[in-house]
Amino acid sequence: MKESQAKGKDSVGIVKTDYYTFAEPPNELVLTSGKRLGPITLAYETYGDLNSERNNAILVLHALSGTAHAAGYHSPNDKYPGWWDVYIGPGKPFDTDKYFVICSNIIGGCNGSTGPSSLNPLTGKEYGLEFPLVTIQDMVNAQWYLIRYLGIPKLLAVAGGSMGGMQALQWAISYPEMVQSVIALGTASSISAQGIAFNEVGRQAIYMDPKWNNGDYYRSGQPRSGLALARMVGHITYLSESLMHERFGRKLQHSDLLSFNFNSEFAVESYLHHQGINFVTRFDANSYLYITKAIDYFDLKSDFGGKLSNAFDYVLSDFLVISFTTDWLYPSSKSREIVNALRSCGKNVIYTDVETEKGHDAFLLEDSFMARNIGNFLKREHEKMRNEQLKNRI
Amino acid sequence: MKESQAKGKDSVGIVKTDYYTFAEPPNELVLTSGKRLGPITLAYETYGDLNSERNNAILVLHALSGTAHAAGYHSPNDKYPGWWDVYIGPGKPFDTDKYFVICSNIIGGCNGSTGPSSLNPLTGKEYGLEFPLVTIQDMVNAQWYLIRYLGIPKLLAVAGGSMGGMQALQWAISYPEMVQSVIALGTASSISAQGIAFNEVGRQAIYMDPKWNNGDYYRSGQPRSGLALARMVGHITYLSESLMHERFGRKLQHSDLLSFNFNSEFAVESYLHHQGINFVTRFDANSYLYITKAIDYFDLKSDFGGKLSNAFDYVLSDFLVISFTTDWLYPSSKSREIVNALRSCGKNVIYTDVETEKGHDAFLLEDSFMARNIGNFLKREHEKMRNEQLKNRI
Repeated sequence: MKESQAKGKDSVGIVKTDYYTFAEPPNELVLTSGKRLGPITLAYETYGDLNSERNNAILVLHALSGTAHAAGYHSPNDKYPGWWDVYIGPGKPFDTDKYFVICSNIIGGCNGSTGPSSLNPLTGKEYGLEFPLVTIQDMVNAQWYLIRYLGIPKLLAVAGGSMGGMQALQWAISYPEMVQSVIALGTASSISAQGIAFNEVGRQAIYMDPKWNNGDYYRSGQPRSGLALARMVGHITYLSESLMHERFGRKLQHSDLLSFNFNSEFAVESYLHHQGINFVTRFDANSYLYITKAIDYFDLKSDFGGKLSNAFDYVLSDFLVISFTTDWLYPSSKSREIVNALRSCGKNVIYTDVETEKGHDAFLLEDSFMARNIGNFLKREHEKMRNEQLKNRI
Repeated sequence: MKESQAKGKDSVGIVKTDYYTFAEPPNELVLTSGKRLGPITLAYETYGDLNSERNNAILVLHALSGTAHAAGYHSPNDKYPGWWDVYIGPGKPFDTDKYFVICSNIIGGCNGSTGPSSLNPLTGKEYGLEFPLVTIQDMVNAQWYLIRYLGIPKLLAVAGGSMGGMQALQWAISYPEMVQSVIALGTASSISAQGIAFNEVGRQAIYMDPKWNNGDYYRSGQPRSGLALARMVGHITYLSESLMHERFGRKLQHSDLLSFNFNSEFAVESYLHHQGINFVTRFDANSYLYITKAIDYFDLKSDFGGKLSNAFDYVLSDFLVISFTTDWLYPSSKSREIVNALRSCGKNVIYTDVETEKGHDAFLLEDSFMARNIGNFLKREHEKMRNEQLKNRI
C-alpha cells in the first residue's frame, strides 16, 4: 500500500508544509499602508503535479483561521485531514490527478508565514504590535512571489471561501493576466457594518484579556480567554440560526435538569466553549487582530472610486461565484453585488446560490451540488486555457 | 404651567420611582429553584389614576436593561424621558388620561429592586453570587405582591417587549384570573440556541474581566470592560443588519482615510463602544448575569410537558402579539409559534408582523401602526372588562 493511500484512495495522502522565503533583494514588500515588511516567508502546500504546459495550477486560499494545510494528512496518525480535503484529491473537484493545487498561507498569520509572532529582524524579538497592518492586497502581493517562484506564468484558477474569496477576487484585480478564472465562495467585496461589529467584539475580547499586554505576550503565554471568547463570537456567525437550532436547540449538555448556577449547561454553550478552547492551542491572538482588521479594510468599491464595477473593469478572468442561502455573515446579497458588477463589465460569471442550512461554514463542507459546479467549471476553464495556449502558439 | 406639562402636553411630566417592600411575613419568596429570597423590594412607577371600578390598571414590564422608569421625567433637566414614553402618556396608546399604568422593575435587577447588588441580610454585605438564580416566573410572582398591594384585583392588560413580553405571557399563565389581556411585543416562549449563545458570550466577557472577581466587586468597582463588551454584543443583536448598514455602513468616524492601526475607526465601532461605556454607568454586571440567565431558562414549552399549547390551556386573557420583520433575536417565527399555540386552545389573538427596518429594538421605538394597534386593542379590552363587571353585578 502506497503511503498516499494511507487514508483512503481519494486522499492526497501524507503531505508536508513547505516554506518559501523571498530570496531576492530587496526581500521585502511595500505594503498598502506605505510601510515595508521583510524578510517574508510564506507557508504553502502543493498537491498533484504541474504539467509540462504549466496550465493546470490552481491556487487555493483560506479563510481567517485557515492554514496552508488544505488536503491530506501530515502524519498517518492525524485525526483530521486538511481543511478542504472534501474538495481536493484524486477524483475530487480540485482533482489532483489533473491539477496542480497550491494552498498558500497569508502574511499576518501564525501558521508558518511572517506575522506578528515572527521575529522582527530589527529587534530580534517577536513583532507583536510592531508588525504593520496588512491588507488583503498585501497578502495577495506576497502570494505573487510564491507563484512566480513555483514557475507558474498563469493560474488556471484562484479559489477560496470567505476571506479566501476576497483574496481570489483581489488576485484577478491585481494580476489580471495571471488568472484564468476565479472561484469565490461565500464572500463579499466588503463586509457589512454588522460584520465589522462582530470583528471588533472579537478584538475587544482580546484587548481586554490582561495577558494580551498590548500584544507583547510571547514570553508569558498568550491571552487564551480573550482569544477563546473572540472565537466563540466568530462561531455564532459561522452557523445559521436554523442549524444551531437543529444541532443544539435548547438541549442541556449533562443533565435533564436546570442547574440554577452559572456553569454552562446548554449544549450550545458547551459547543462554543469547546471551539474557543481548541482554537487557542493553534492560533495566535495578535494574528486574530491583524487578520480581522484586513477583512474589515477590504473594500473593492471604495478602492475603485465608489463603484464596484470599476474594480472589475480590467479583470480578464471568468468567475464562478457561489453563495449559501443561510449565510448571514457573507449573505447571498453580497455575492449578487459582485455578480452584477462583473456582468455589468461583460465578464463571464456563473452564479449559484446553494440551498443549505449550514450557514457561512457551508463553503467548508461537503456538498455534491457545489462539488459538481466546481468540477465542471474547472474542466471548462482548463479546456479554454489549453485552446488559448494552442492559438497563441499557431 | 403645571409641572406635568414641563416636557410637552403629551408627557406624564415629572414622576418618581416608588419602592414596595414585602410587608407581610414570611416576607420572602420561594423561588423556582427551591431557594428562598427575602426580604424583597420592587421599584415601580405609576402614571395616571386607578378609577373607582379598578378596571383600568395596566402593568408594563421591561426588557433586560430596563427600569421602572417607563414614562415622563425624573427632573426637568433630564435629557431623555422613561424608556417607553412614546407609548405612555396623555392621548398615547397607554393613555394616562384613561388608564392607570404601572411599570414594575424585576427581582435580580439593579435599579431599586432586590438583586445581587442588594445587601444580603444574612451577611450584611452585597449578595454577589450568593444571590439565588431567579426565573421569569419568580419575577412575576414578586410583581404579584406589588399588584395586590396596589389594590388591583384584575389587570386590564399586562404589556411588555422582549423579556417584558416573556413576563407578560407568564403573568397570564401564572395568574389567569388577574389578566384581562396581554400585549406581547417582539418576544418568544423561549429563546433560540443562537440567543443563548449570545447571552453566554456576554456572560463570558464579564467573567473574563479580572475586576469581576467572582461577583465580589462592590467595594472595588465593577468589571466595566467586561460589562461594556457584553453590551456591545447585545447591541449588535438588537439592530437589524439593514439598519446597521443604513445608519453606519462602512463609514469612518473621524477621517476619510484608514488609520492602519487598532484604534476603532469605523462608525459602527464607535457606536458600539459608546453604548458599552454608557451602560456600565447605569447597570450592574452581576444583574446582567442573572437576568440573561433568567431569559435563557424561560421555556414555556418545556415547563408544560413539551407542548406549548398546554402552557396556554388555562389562560383566560385575550392577546395582542406583535413581531417585527427584521427582528432576528426574537424573530417573527417565535411570535407565530405563540399565536398558533394560543389559537389551538381557542384563545382570542390579534397578531401583527410589523414591517420595519429597526430589528429587535423596534418595540421601543415610535411606530404609528403599532400605536394604533395597541390603542384600539386596549379600548376594546377595557369595554369588554367593563361589560363583564356589569354582567357580574346584575
